[in-house]
Amino acid sequence: MTDNITLVGVVATPPKSMQTASGLSIVSFRLASSQRRYDRTRNAWVDADTNWYSVTAFRQLADNASASLAKGDRVIVAGRLRVRSWENGEKSGTAVEVDADALGPDLLFGTTSFTRVAGRTPEPDAA
Amino acid sequence: MTDNITLVGVVATPPKSMQTASGLSIVSFRLASSQRRYDRTRNAWVDADTNWYSVTAFRQLADNASASLAKGDRVIVAGRLRVRSWENGEKSGTAVEVDADALGPDLLFGTTSFTRVAGRTPEPDAA
Amino acid sequence: MTDNITLVGVVATPPKSMQTASGLSIVSFRLASSQRRYDRTRNAWVDADTNWYSVTAFRQLADNASASLAKGDRVIVAGRLRVRSWENGEKSGTAVEVDADALGPDLLFGTTSFTRVAGRTPEPDAA
Amino acid sequence: MTDNITLVGVVATPPKSMQTASGLSIVSFRLASSQRRYDRTRNAWVDADTNWYSVTAFRQLADNASASLAKGDRVIVAGRLRVRSWENGEKSGTAVEVDADALGPDLLFGTTSFTRVAGRTPEPDAA
Repeated sequence: MTDNITLVGVVATPPKSMQTASGLSIVSFRLASSQRRYDRTRNAWVDADTNWYSVTAFRQLADNASASLAKGDRVIVAGRLRVRSWENGEKSGTAVEVDADALGPDLLFGTTSFTRVAGRTPEPDAA
Repeated sequence: MTDNITLVGVVATPPKSMQTASGLSIVSFRLASSQRRYDRTRNAWVDADTNWYSVTAFRQLADNASASLAKGDRVIVAGRLRVRSWENGEKSGTAVEVDADALGPDLLFGTTSFTRVAGRTPEPDAA
Repeated sequence: MTDNITLVGVVATPPKSMQTASGLSIVSFRLASSQRRYDRTRNAWVDADTNWYSVTAFRQLADNASASLAKGDRVIVAGRLRVRSWENGEKSGTAVEVDADALGPDLLFGTTSFTRVAGRTPEPDAA
Repeated sequence: MTDNITLVGVVATPPKSMQTASGLSIVSFRLASSQRRYDRTRNAWVDADTNWYSVTAFRQLADNASASLAKGDRVIVAGRLRVRSWENGEKSGTAVEVDADALGPDLLFGTTSFTRVAGRTPEPDAA
């Protein structure tokens, strides 16, 4: 089954835009999601570790995210989780990535004004 | 267990702001989330019914949503689902509500500019 | 976007099995999911309302659920939420349904023994 | 916000039971969750990579999972995702873990019979 996940966290690196040879727009950034946990001993919520993700968006969503988001912004991401092993010469590791289906600023700390982008009708979601 | 849900859909009514006697800000609106389903016969994705929800946000998130969102906007909502039975004289029914933990515009169809709201530090999430 | 949801709750009605004219197996039951909420005044978790759902499963999952689950069992359901309006003569209402993609007993209150069902390879998930 | 996730996959290692000095039961195993993705070119679903997780359960849920699950079983896990960096001498890496709130066999490939465990009332969920 698809490993869907929703994250609310802070954009931790400047969003990086790319375009493939075929013209596909891609944007990616690191996301820091601070966890809290319930401490039974203290009967209170306490800060726990922060989860780190690489978030990627594609096509129109990438273009708009690129024009809208900056390091430090608090965002909501709904997407599909990918846990990948990588190797690069002698080094290897695990990458934790989220392909965004929806992405935008969270309104907890501020307000937004929205501008519709004309002319392109987004392709329907595959899922 | 808490029935968490993430919705991506269109704000279907003008967001309605209220304040309780104790000064608590509340905003609420109807959300339409269009479903798609995979048609095995046609081997393609087709439009299915639309799910309707009443979305509610509180405190600073309510104030900011109120100042930022309008009917027709596409938004992301992460929150807790509540399925409630109601009675009003001879009438009764079922209300499907979402209490938002995070809320903001989706960047699929346009761009946003963000303005931080100063002065108030949001209370930490209970969850 | 598909309104995915995961529920953990109690099977509240005896699971009801059906078969369509074309031989498709269907099972359905009511599910009660007890909510808890954090009471800021009392700084503690308290019982909140119970959410009620109609859960439906299809094909092999329906056959196996039918043979395995009974009223009173605590189960996990992962599926797609549907909020539907219905009319029946003068009456109308809202139905809250979940089409199960995965379904099984939760191990919080007891143990299970598993028996593989031979001979049928389930069709791949559409999603 | 808590990074909740629901996984459906295969128990890939024999579940390993432990008990802390204070008597807390813990069970853990590796979970393989096979992803599928929609191939726009071929207009069909194709196999994608497999996501790997370390799943951990505690207390009564650990005891019951330990007595019920074996390598090769298909299970449903609802829990909280943790992405942790680790270091061990010269080596370092990323661990992707899920703390289970609910856990049990998926009924897609077989049936289960359930036995209630008497005598212990589980502690209420913190969340």
